[in-house]
Amino acid sequence: MTKIRVSLLQNGALRQGNTDLIDDWRRDSDDALWVDIQEPEQEIIEPLLEERFGFHELAAEDSLSATTLPKYDSFTDYDFFIFRTVDVNISEHASETFKIAAFLGRNFLFTVHRRPLRAIDDVASRLPGDRRMIQRGVDFLLYSIVDAMVDAYFPMLEQIEEALDTLQDQIFDHADDAHLDELLHLKRDVNVLRRHSLPQRELLNQISRADAKFVQQQHLIYFRDVYDHMFRISETIDVDRDQMTGTMDAYLSVVANRTNEIMKVLTIFSAVMLPLSLIAGVYGMNFEHMPELKWLHGYPFALLLMSVTAGVMLFWFWWRGWINWPRKRPSRRDL
Amino acid sequence: MTKIRVSLLQNGALRQGNTDLIDDWRRDSDDALWVDIQEPEQEIIEPLLEERFGFHELAAEDSLSATTLPKYDSFTDYDFFIFRTVDVNISEHASETFKIAAFLGRNFLFTVHRRPLRAIDDVASRLPGDRRMIQRGVDFLLYSIVDAMVDAYFPMLEQIEEALDTLQDQIFDHADDAHLDELLHLKRDVNVLRRHSLPQRELLNQISRADAKFVQQQHLIYFRDVYDHMFRISETIDVDRDQMTGTMDAYLSVVANRTNEIMKVLTIFSAVMLPLSLIAGVYGMNFEHMPELKWLHGYPFALLLMSVTAGVMLFWFWWRGWINWPRKRPSRRDL
Amino acid sequence: MTKIRVSLLQNGALRQGNTDLIDDWRRDSDDALWVDIQEPEQEIIEPLLEERFGFHELAAEDSLSATTLPKYDSFTDYDFFIFRTVDVNISEHASETFKIAAFLGRNFLFTVHRRPLRAIDDVASRLPGDRRMIQRGVDFLLYSIVDAMVDAYFPMLEQIEEALDTLQDQIFDHADDAHLDELLHLKRDVNVLRRHSLPQRELLNQISRADAKFVQQQHLIYFRDVYDHMFRISETIDVDRDQMTGTMDAYLSVVANRTNEIMKVLTIFSAVMLPLSLIAGVYGMNFEHMPELKWLHGYPFALLLMSVTAGVMLFWFWWRGWINWPRKRPSRRDL
Amino acid sequence: MTKIRVSLLQNGALRQGNTDLIDDWRRDSDDALWVDIQEPEQEIIEPLLEERFGFHELAAEDSLSATTLPKYDSFTDYDFFIFRTVDVNISEHASETFKIAAFLGRNFLFTVHRRPLRAIDDVASRLPGDRRMIQRGVDFLLYSIVDAMVDAYFPMLEQIEEALDTLQDQIFDHADDAHLDELLHLKRDVNVLRRHSLPQRELLNQISRADAKFVQQQHLIYFRDVYDHMFRISETIDVDRDQMTGTMDAYLSVVANRTNEIMKVLTIFSAVMLPLSLIAGVYGMNFEHMPELKWLHGYPFALLLMSVTAGVMLFWFWWRGWINWPRKRPSRRDL
Amino acid sequence: MTKIRVSLLQNGALRQGNTDLIDDWRRDSDDALWVDIQEPEQEIIEPLLEERFGFHELAAEDSLSATTLPKYDSFTDYDFFIFRTVDVNISEHASETFKIAAFLGRNFLFTVHRRPLRAIDDVASRLPGDRRMIQRGVDFLLYSIVDAMVDAYFPMLEQIEEALDTLQDQIFDHADDAHLDELLHLKRDVNVLRRHSLPQRELLNQISRADAKFVQQQHLIYFRDVYDHMFRISETIDVDRDQMTGTMDAYLSVVANRTNEIMKVLTIFSAVMLPLSLIAGVYGMNFEHMPELKWLHGYPFALLLMSVTAGVMLFWFWWRGWINWPRKRPSRRDL
Repeated sequence: MTKIRVSLLQNGALRQGNTDLIDDWRRDSDDALWVDIQEPEQEIIEPLLEERFGFHELAAEDSLSATTLPKYDSFTDYDFFIFRTVDVNISEHASETFKIAAFLGRNFLFTVHRRPLRAIDDVASRLPGDRRMIQRGVDFLLYSIVDAMVDAYFPMLEQIEEALDTLQDQIFDHADDAHLDELLHLKRDVNVLRRHSLPQRELLNQISRADAKFVQQQHLIYFRDVYDHMFRISETIDVDRDQMTGTMDAYLSVVANRTNEIMKVLTIFSAVMLPLSLIAGVYGMNFEHMPELKWLHGYPFALLLMSVTAGVMLFWFWWRGWINWPRKRPSRRDL
Repeated sequence: MTKIRVSLLQNGALRQGNTDLIDDWRRDSDDALWVDIQEPEQEIIEPLLEERFGFHELAAEDSLSATTLPKYDSFTDYDFFIFRTVDVNISEHASETFKIAAFLGRNFLFTVHRRPLRAIDDVASRLPGDRRMIQRGVDFLLYSIVDAMVDAYFPMLEQIEEALDTLQDQIFDHADDAHLDELLHLKRDVNVLRRHSLPQRELLNQISRADAKFVQQQHLIYFRDVYDHMFRISETIDVDRDQMTGTMDAYLSVVANRTNEIMKVLTIFSAVMLPLSLIAGVYGMNFEHMPELKWLHGYPFALLLMSVTAGVMLFWFWWRGWINWPRKRPSRRDL
Repeated sequence: MTKIRVSLLQNGALRQGNTDLIDDWRRDSDDALWVDIQEPEQEIIEPLLEERFGFHELAAEDSLSATTLPKYDSFTDYDFFIFRTVDVNISEHASETFKIAAFLGRNFLFTVHRRPLRAIDDVASRLPGDRRMIQRGVDFLLYSIVDAMVDAYFPMLEQIEEALDTLQDQIFDHADDAHLDELLHLKRDVNVLRRHSLPQRELLNQISRADAKFVQQQHLIYFRDVYDHMFRISETIDVDRDQMTGTMDAYLSVVANRTNEIMKVLTIFSAVMLPLSLIAGVYGMNFEHMPELKWLHGYPFALLLMSVTAGVMLFWFWWRGWINWPRKRPSRRDL
Repeated sequence: MTKIRVSLLQNGALRQGNTDLIDDWRRDSDDALWVDIQEPEQEIIEPLLEERFGFHELAAEDSLSATTLPKYDSFTDYDFFIFRTVDVNISEHASETFKIAAFLGRNFLFTVHRRPLRAIDDVASRLPGDRRMIQRGVDFLLYSIVDAMVDAYFPMLEQIEEALDTLQDQIFDHADDAHLDELLHLKRDVNVLRRHSLPQRELLNQISRADAKFVQQQHLIYFRDVYDHMFRISETIDVDRDQMTGTMDAYLSVVANRTNEIMKVLTIFSAVMLPLSLIAGVYGMNFEHMPELKWLHGYPFALLLMSVTAGVMLFWFWWRGWINWPRKRPSRRDL
Repeated sequence: MTKIRVSLLQNGALRQGNTDLIDDWRRDSDDALWVDIQEPEQEIIEPLLEERFGFHELAAEDSLSATTLPKYDSFTDYDFFIFRTVDVNISEHASETFKIAAFLGRNFLFTVHRRPLRAIDDVASRLPGDRRMIQRGVDFLLYSIVDAMVDAYFPMLEQIEEALDTLQDQIFDHADDAHLDELLHLKRDVNVLRRHSLPQRELLNQISRADAKFVQQQHLIYFRDVYDHMFRISETIDVDRDQMTGTMDAYLSVVANRTNEIMKVLTIFSAVMLPLSLIAGVYGMNFEHMPELKWLHGYPFALLLMSVTAGVMLFWFWWRGWINWPRKRPSRRDL
């Protein structure tokens, strides 16, 4: 259900309430108005946004639809922004990002979002105590929201890096399909996150270069600061992607290496056992004239022959470097 | 067979019919004319396009030929566009895209396409009911067509993603050449789609930046909106491509992993069976002097020796981590 | 041997002949001169190009040398171009491209090439019948040549795609080193083709943007059209390259998959046979006291034991999904 | 604990001391002041930076926080820079880079860093002996610091290249998971280093293009020189990355090759031994009527049969090129 | 030991000698001076470069140091360039490139290099015979040197391509680690070469666009020509890199394919031999009641049974396409 929170700063006094407060605000005054709309429903919102405030139909539609990438559109009386954030409380999947649309005018700010978001709630609850956020202008209020929104990326990135670390450990321990599956999911999440964060970075860059009409000159440096954060976020994402590609390669290498190890064991076993079996087979033949069978020490001789053969084979493999007790330290990984 | 549909808005009245209507339209009037030409044949079209309307021979040729990439050419009296669309009703292959050529003048719009397209049909049938589409100008009519055309990509993309999801599940279930073949086809489709959609994105960007002479200033934002849709489409395509590369890697990894598993089983089997066979072989030798053969419990002793050997081997493999009953949960995937 | 064809349009009359015709042409007239030089030899050409027409020594050298990439140089009295084409009649290797150098002045055009080229021959033979090509100016003549030259790429690309299709089929049928070798050659051809076609595309873009002094304004759109063709050619080349990378991956995957299949067969065989051999070995031991050997039905019992063991093994493998008669349809590929 | 070193050049005399010296300096004088702050603590620093010198709160915050990428911000009275350096003495991991923030005014320079850094210490200790560094202006002092900072990369890169060389040798010697793990760590370090050094390179480029207000024209060439060094550093990093990718591929190839070798040995062994065992098995059968068993030379005949079979098999493998004594030189690597 | 060669063109007369000649030259004259310094030593060079000619200390340092990338710096009285060349006579490793620093003024040219270079020697020895090189100005002399320097790349590239061709043949013949090692070295060489040649290409582009003050307008086209050569060189390098990546892939594929072939042989062998051994084992069992053992034709029956079993197995493998005598032509490669 649509939930509308209105904050109005009038003559230095801050009031928070519902849509009724809007009536007390005048467009040509210096009063600062913040309207936050959550879970917008078309039939409730359109009269407010399009008719009462005269926002362009396309901007209003964009603010209501689910999937739009970060962007900035300039209109005569207001700037229109779309931002995206993540929220580790709602969703652990980095690929699920949430939209915040913002209409920023000289003395009003509308924010529209479909889910309750921690970034908005934080600013709304800190507002009465830290009134300066709105006193410096609605653009500074927007900065506070965007700043909280961008900071929400950091715990998400930490989660991803933790998951990746765990996966790498597990892959070196014992690589199987489940890890691969998990890695692919993680990779997709990060790819989606990257594609969403790049236009956001560009958008913040644009704002900090004074492209938006209703952001005041002296606040540009604040948006520049958020841009720097966003830049660091996308750098981190890129490092994570490189890591994932590396992990993927490692997965293949580890499996190839294991196969190699297993092959060695199989080969050594077969190569040692087969000649011994042959010797046993030879002395199991039923020829009438086989002198060794009559020897008093024929049996021990056969066993000795087997031992010598086995010894030679093992020595040969050791010499080829396939048996490496002395070379290789025992480790958790070989277990 | 060439099919020509003409719509003419004259003094607020909309008429739809065939080429006869064109005679009622005058170039210097404010009447709006839309001529839609389907399955164009050179001998019918050239007199109309080149001679009667004086379109440049190269533009006329481009509008008739099958393969041209999206582009924009500016002429004195008209803008010439080529767009491409997909149509999930005609073809399930994303790689098959269809061309729409458009000549946009001050008060006329020509659209030329070789196949009946849902985007065009939709607009043509909605036109009598929603007359505003043409009343706002022929450029707004063009916007309506392009919008429908771009929206046609979404069901195609959904189909691709569904097919990819199914493939990924199947690959983890049992990877074989058929999946690989299908994946390669899907990848090629997506690559072709991407190469067609990038110039279209650029074209829409160009239009929304006011490059086209006959698109009115107040309608730029609508083309900007279509551009945003097209941008999202190419983003989705890129995500899908990344997914496909990942799936390809997964395919290789899954197969490598399976080989690894099979090797283990083979190695364990051989390594357990070969020594037992050797023992049996040894006691099958025909030496006259083999004390064990005379023992009362020689046979049980041999069987015990075999059991102990097998036990030691199995323990050793378990200790190396090759036998992992307790570690690994049974799953659909291991089946 | 150097072969020079001269075409001269004088007062509306077209004459074709050898170098003597050049004497009838005057630099300050409106007569249009086309000199086509095939298999140029330095000692014959230098006096003509450098001394008589005063072309810059570097341009003259470039027009004679074998390997130069497409480019445009501007001189006071003429534009100098180098184009490259392919010719499916001379060479099936896309990597072999042929140079055409062109000097374009106000009323003269020189074309220099080392091999007889179909593009040039076509234009030369169509010229008497379609005089308009030279009447519209020597720049339009150049356009006609370049157009024919660019169109020569299409049959080459078709050949490549056909070869690639065949290869893909063969790889899925039975992958061996010969296919790999062929694929690598094809890939190198396409890479070389791509590197030659990109600067050509740029060159055509440059011309169509009115960079060349002696191309008239009203003919720019024709060069723009050739540029569009060249653009499509390089798009096709890029799609082909993607395809080749995919085919390479497929090759590796198919081989990995085959190995996997073979491993399964080997493992199943060994795992079924080895226990049976062990049973046979056990009852082949020569112990004096082996009760089973005395049993009346000892032999059938042993055979039964073997059958049961084999059955259990096969069931186990079927249950692990390694034996998949019912799941997998028989196909040409499995043969 | 915060450590503040102040250097003041007044009337040609250089004094080094603690914060008391700042009081002797006047903003409108030509005295040059360098304040170096190590391990900054918020409660000590904020009064100095924000209140006394009026640096912007965001810049002050950035100078204190741990993770910021190289950047340049322009303020009215000062330029604000963030650089990053590595320090082979503190950390062997190239991925650990250290921040230096710098406030550069007309006649003052503040440097803030969290760890004692060799680059700063060097300049501070060379300052009394080489007074020109500060006499040429605080911007030249900044150059000296940045130069020392950038030079610190070179030993780090040498370490990386040495580690990589060792790894490559080891991988060709005997490839195992430990090398892979180490390679992945090295790769991540280099990736992080690259991501930090690219913005630094851009920053230095910016400075050398005269973007910073308080760097004098005649000193631009010095920053240009540092930029060249930084450029070479990032080139070296890129070469190293290519090397790592190559090493990764080599790892996979070496393992695949080894598996191949092992397979050959196994196959040759099995293929030679199995037929011999079969022969032994045949003559171990207990049929009453087996003529060979009665032959006087039956046993030598059987042994001869085995030898011939083995010989034929070995010859066949030699002919297939699987046994390659004569072809392949013995090497350390085959051991 | 430092070696200085001076060439002085005075009143049309060319003199070549040592540093004494410099005294005869005056900065404001039209005499052309070329000073070539080989194996520069700081204590000899600094007085000459910095003090006598007043070159900037950083440029002088750059000209002496070993490792700097191609670049251009503009100073008031001279242009400063750094070029890099290869020399197939000194070093076969493409990764070893040699620096030439050049100071170009109105009427003087200084070239500094650490090794005797063929490009310099060539120009110096051709100078007396082809005096025009210096008569057209010192910038034309610089062009002559740079041209010789760039041409030195071609034999190097030919060597690389030859080595690569040989490697590819060897890999298809019998792939082993030594080839891989060699390929990796070749790849690194080419990567380094590429990184050095790209800035050089850019530098030549810059010069040919008239960025350098002391290169005369009418000589720009000559530098443009060198730029074209350099462009072709980097194109060739890129094609070579693609080739190497392809060869790497081929290596892996060939090894995978070989393993596959070996697996087939092993599997066929085991699968044919194991059942035969089982039959032999069965009839080697010592049961008292085994009717077959008493049969007159029991032994031939057993041999027949074995033959039939082997035949069935071989037929099955042939039917699966694993035995492909008829399909596959014998070739050098299969040997």
